[in-house]
Amino acid sequence: MRVSRFILFFIAAFAFANTLKADNGYELWLKYKHIQNPAVETRYRSQVNGIYFPSNTDRLLVARKELVRGLGGLLNIQPKFASIDQSSLIVGTIPQTGWAGRTIDASSIQTIGNEGYIIKTIKQNGKSVILIAGNTDTGVLYGTFAFLKLMQTGKSLDNLNIVDYPKTSYRVLDHWDNPDRSVERGYAGFSIWNWHKLPGYIDPRYIDYARANASVGINGSVLNNVNANVQMLSPFYLAKVKALADAFRPYGIRVYLAVKFSSPVELGGLKTADPLDTAVQRWWKSKADEIYRAIPDFGGFLVKANSEGQPGPQTYGRNHAEGANMLADAVAPHHGIVMWRAFVYDHKVPDDRAKQAYNEFTPLDGKFRPNVMVQVKNGPIDFQPREPFHPLFGALPNTPIMLEVQLTQEYLGFSTNLVYEAPLFKEVLNSDTYANGKGTTVSKILQGKYNPKLITGMAGVANIGTDLNWCGHPFAQANWYCFGRLAWNPDQTSAEIADDWLKMTFTNDQRFVGPVKQEMLQSRENTVNYMTPLGLHHIMSANGHYGPGPWTDNIGRADWTAVYYHKADTNGVGFDRTATGSNALGQYRPEVAKYYGDLATCPDEYLLWFHHLSWNYKMRSGKTLWDEMVHHYYEGADSVKHMQQVWNSVQPYVDPELHDEVKQLMAVQYAEAIRWRNSCVLYFQTFSRKPIPAVYPQPEHDLSYYRSLRFMNVPGQGTN
Amino acid sequence: MRVSRFILFFIAAFAFANTLKADNGYELWLKYKHIQNPAVETRYRSQVNGIYFPSNTDRLLVARKELVRGLGGLLNIQPKFASIDQSSLIVGTIPQTGWAGRTIDASSIQTIGNEGYIIKTIKQNGKSVILIAGNTDTGVLYGTFAFLKLMQTGKSLDNLNIVDYPKTSYRVLDHWDNPDRSVERGYAGFSIWNWHKLPGYIDPRYIDYARANASVGINGSVLNNVNANVQMLSPFYLAKVKALADAFRPYGIRVYLAVKFSSPVELGGLKTADPLDTAVQRWWKSKADEIYRAIPDFGGFLVKANSEGQPGPQTYGRNHAEGANMLADAVAPHHGIVMWRAFVYDHKVPDDRAKQAYNEFTPLDGKFRPNVMVQVKNGPIDFQPREPFHPLFGALPNTPIMLEVQLTQEYLGFSTNLVYEAPLFKEVLNSDTYANGKGTTVSKILQGKYNPKLITGMAGVANIGTDLNWCGHPFAQANWYCFGRLAWNPDQTSAEIADDWLKMTFTNDQRFVGPVKQEMLQSRENTVNYMTPLGLHHIMSANGHYGPGPWTDNIGRADWTAVYYHKADTNGVGFDRTATGSNALGQYRPEVAKYYGDLATCPDEYLLWFHHLSWNYKMRSGKTLWDEMVHHYYEGADSVKHMQQVWNSVQPYVDPELHDEVKQLMAVQYAEAIRWRNSCVLYFQTFSRKPIPAVYPQPEHDLSYYRSLRFMNVPGQGTN
Repeated sequence: MRVSRFILFFIAAFAFANTLKADNGYELWLKYKHIQNPAVETRYRSQVNGIYFPSNTDRLLVARKELVRGLGGLLNIQPKFASIDQSSLIVGTIPQTGWAGRTIDASSIQTIGNEGYIIKTIKQNGKSVILIAGNTDTGVLYGTFAFLKLMQTGKSLDNLNIVDYPKTSYRVLDHWDNPDRSVERGYAGFSIWNWHKLPGYIDPRYIDYARANASVGINGSVLNNVNANVQMLSPFYLAKVKALADAFRPYGIRVYLAVKFSSPVELGGLKTADPLDTAVQRWWKSKADEIYRAIPDFGGFLVKANSEGQPGPQTYGRNHAEGANMLADAVAPHHGIVMWRAFVYDHKVPDDRAKQAYNEFTPLDGKFRPNVMVQVKNGPIDFQPREPFHPLFGALPNTPIMLEVQLTQEYLGFSTNLVYEAPLFKEVLNSDTYANGKGTTVSKILQGKYNPKLITGMAGVANIGTDLNWCGHPFAQANWYCFGRLAWNPDQTSAEIADDWLKMTFTNDQRFVGPVKQEMLQSRENTVNYMTPLGLHHIMSANGHYGPGPWTDNIGRADWTAVYYHKADTNGVGFDRTATGSNALGQYRPEVAKYYGDLATCPDEYLLWFHHLSWNYKMRSGKTLWDEMVHHYYEGADSVKHMQQVWNSVQPYVDPELHDEVKQLMAVQYAEAIRWRNSCVLYFQTFSRKPIPAVYPQPEHDLSYYRSLRFMNVPGQGTN
Repeated sequence: MRVSRFILFFIAAFAFANTLKADNGYELWLKYKHIQNPAVETRYRSQVNGIYFPSNTDRLLVARKELVRGLGGLLNIQPKFASIDQSSLIVGTIPQTGWAGRTIDASSIQTIGNEGYIIKTIKQNGKSVILIAGNTDTGVLYGTFAFLKLMQTGKSLDNLNIVDYPKTSYRVLDHWDNPDRSVERGYAGFSIWNWHKLPGYIDPRYIDYARANASVGINGSVLNNVNANVQMLSPFYLAKVKALADAFRPYGIRVYLAVKFSSPVELGGLKTADPLDTAVQRWWKSKADEIYRAIPDFGGFLVKANSEGQPGPQTYGRNHAEGANMLADAVAPHHGIVMWRAFVYDHKVPDDRAKQAYNEFTPLDGKFRPNVMVQVKNGPIDFQPREPFHPLFGALPNTPIMLEVQLTQEYLGFSTNLVYEAPLFKEVLNSDTYANGKGTTVSKILQGKYNPKLITGMAGVANIGTDLNWCGHPFAQANWYCFGRLAWNPDQTSAEIADDWLKMTFTNDQRFVGPVKQEMLQSRENTVNYMTPLGLHHIMSANGHYGPGPWTDNIGRADWTAVYYHKADTNGVGFDRTATGSNALGQYRPEVAKYYGDLATCPDEYLLWFHHLSWNYKMRSGKTLWDEMVHHYYEGADSVKHMQQVWNSVQPYVDPELHDEVKQLMAVQYAEAIRWRNSCVLYFQTFSRKPIPAVYPQPEHDLSYYRSLRFMNVPGQGTN
């Protein structure tokens, strides 16, 4: 085995000239590997032979530097910069690009706005010239990355005519990073923010982080955990935050802070944090002024209030709007925003936790300041492998809504499971709320199509850490990538994003891209199958959410347990959210409620989310519910084995070390899938009292074995 | 400033063809950058034109792979492997290399032993051939790295005749890493051991870590903190330890574990951990057997016992030898060793902590099993910027002694201060103990020259973490590097090691290497000057040992404070360790005691370590002690400014990002040096009641300001 790996090394060494070093994943999708097709390379070289790129701002300088780096890698050249008339590539803001910029029509200029760009081929005196231009240096930066992507993905540079711009305004990564560098729900090591060495030392990682974000259009970073440490607002830490803001600014990224609602008390020494108290209001205004003096483009605040023990306006008898508006007023003079999380639940256990956010927020529609965004998770519980869309989408027509998705795989196998999340995100984006009639998708709502005066945005809980490959799993990088792409334009497909990412990260070789893309697109459904098929949810272990724990039944409060959600008994399984149960369905528009509520139309995927059904319930497949559930669990685990086979088959086309790394992780994933499958099937069997159909291999161990497994130091349980 | 950096980028881009990517330091001293001198490159290419390298073991395979990688980078070639008669480079174990190996004389074969190698030029039929050979595949691995180093440092490959072998047997890195991945005294991020993902996932970092160690001859890793978590011996963790052992084995590295003496109680459920209890002995034997079944070449145990609250044999009324021997007997059948730390102190505060190890261990000389090494820190206190050599060196003639040095800069400015530690290590290695008459240096003792039957070794507390550049500061890599080099051969000079490291890490350009090497060699003295000149010690802050804290006077126990060590009062300053004081001097041989004890001969460097002197004491310089102390503090801070100037002057010769990174760190270091200087001078001034001489700028702030500074989340305060 060692010998065969060694032989493969030599094969690969020829395929990957220039890269005798192993690919450790650090370069993300910005590898700029030398193009292997000589005809393509020659053609590209001729099209960048002479570059005009005036760069009089920091942002233009980093764009130009990226272009040098990209062309240096892709084409193995030192770019030649030249006068505008001797260049075949012209890059700059529209005014900078003179006669070339004047070829752009007024409508395109209008369309691209402050962050968009144009890439077009201009025929000039019988010669073809490529123009990359934007209204702003930000647009030029994004356009430069887009141009490089064309080459990275092997696209033709002939007859270009691209007009692109972001469909949402605030495209933000939420880092759940603590000042001690632990990361809550972090599975890729520790926080990349080295607070101790800031402000004096800018880790090279910060720059590569900013480059990666800029390459996909992410324009904001919330630096710290939503379970916020108040010290982040102290002068000690603000000096460090400023240093990061300065480092990120050239890349078009603004920094934000998560703040603790009780900061005026804990940090300011006030007696209350009541948002209607004038001293409290003054404290926040003064704090905001202090921040903006240091960071003029500071983005604003993210707040988790009255949730999971965090203080909030309700602590003082006020509502979320009163709390959010007080903060919004503090940052408004500086053009900052407040992102106010809708993920709330209070001290008393509700009949159905899925209902709480809707109940608390819908009465407040229209009462938030225009610079407040209510940040709503994709589903009503908590980033489960599958949830129906959150009922707040479409229910707050007069409130800016920001979609919050989780890139870090808290419930999706940490960083050992290959799960491409774009299909999950697309599932909610494509969901039809019927709020303004049929076709009122979450995507359109987020783009402000029904209320254009609302600000728009998407937030992704980052999966980034100190791991060499940033995200813990080489394929987890695709989730960072696809988040940026979807926040820029939610209407892109999972497949096209995967295609680009694979080509930029691994190779353009279709023998690799084709089969691996298929596996990526299937990967999330695989994981749903071996973890929570048919609408099951929240049955993970209470030990850091690692692995299965359907038996979890006694840990502090009912809605933290698994049994609260699956409600399995000898009669059946599932959470009745119809009118006979919690009636969470009543929070959706009638069309949606009817669709999910009627067993004739409710998709299998959501069955046990909305319904409690007999183990003998006859599924569309003709199987009983029990047999169908078992089938899904086995299919899920088998699909990982299939993925392993596909991965083995593409070995000749990629870097051998990187291939081996993924192969190892897939073996871990398979073992974890088997453990999920066996744990859940054996556990639910204690209620169904039915056999595992003989076509399936029986679990290797009994239930008591799986319940007895203990895992120490499960990652992601941050402290602050 | 941004613009000028950008212009420099272009200049550097030409100097560093092939590396348009910024140098982030991850590749350490194994960068294998393309040789820029065409004549040298051509000559080298001709000398590796055709390589014979049979590789039938994992260790030979990784050596061959490293050769491919090295030649690929240095010479931009794909090495051609050929038959022995068509090769100009022949690599292998002596029997594998046939006629070439037979040219080696018997004495050389004898000399190189199991880990050494020979690199020699053979004239054969008028043709020159280079042979790299060892008695073992380990020797071949080390020889391959040595051969690559010749090219990395621009040496001629003509007429080679190198016979090299390690002068100590156990060359071990001690990782103070906890299972939760915190690192006690770690300033480079977190533990690189990703326990959660082990055993299934071998992080690429592990391989690069092993390569780096092998390249300098480090052959052991203690994976976990000396303040050991007992769970490391549980089957859960041992399976993970085995995976690391398997990964490291090809690189000649054995793994070790630090163990808690009370493991039989805490993990085994026994009632006692008394080393004379037969059940306890059985438990350890059984545990050792379990480990060796999984890891046949497991290295053994490292123990911190009866020190800083750790349990040990004294807890049960036994002595260190009884404790160590019990463990030694458990691992002896498997050829394992026990490294027993001499860094001990018990619950009651001693009159002088410097004396305790000597007092406890000298009565036990000759009573340890032959597979026990007593691991002694370089000095008698605790890795201070400067300490005299530990009195145990030379005092245990019948006991194997392992020198323990600290690579991580606990007391040397963490990872923001450039401190090249080789001069510190050499200071102890060159110290004359007079144990066997004049010239009985620590180096000779460690090499077993006075008692050849003793096993030999050196241990370095690792400075490695998850930081992209491994060690937090690009120059801190030099401390990892120099430790390996000195453990291999303690008689190498600081300058030659620095020379090699600079060339391998940065460039062979003498305009860079010359001045920067000078700064490296001076760097440790600089830090002594601005932290603890003239023999001062242990005056750092109690807050994680970060920054100055000469005022520390009340934190649990007296020998944790600063005032215990400097004993400053209005009369004078310094710890009287002569016969009129603690008489710690009495632990040294008379020649040494006289040298340090007599003010006429005691070097200024150790003055206040051994003597309490009046502020008016007249120094050799003619200055008073007070003026001299002030002078050192100011000189120390000024020397950092000088280092900054030198660094700025060499900017044209190195990667611009890497240059900028070091420049930033130097600015931090300067600020920290100023803070040390001002804090200490102002503090000691409260006793001396003398002015700071007018030639020096007065501190910007008063003492209360420096005492009031608070730093949150100081790194390196590991938990377990």
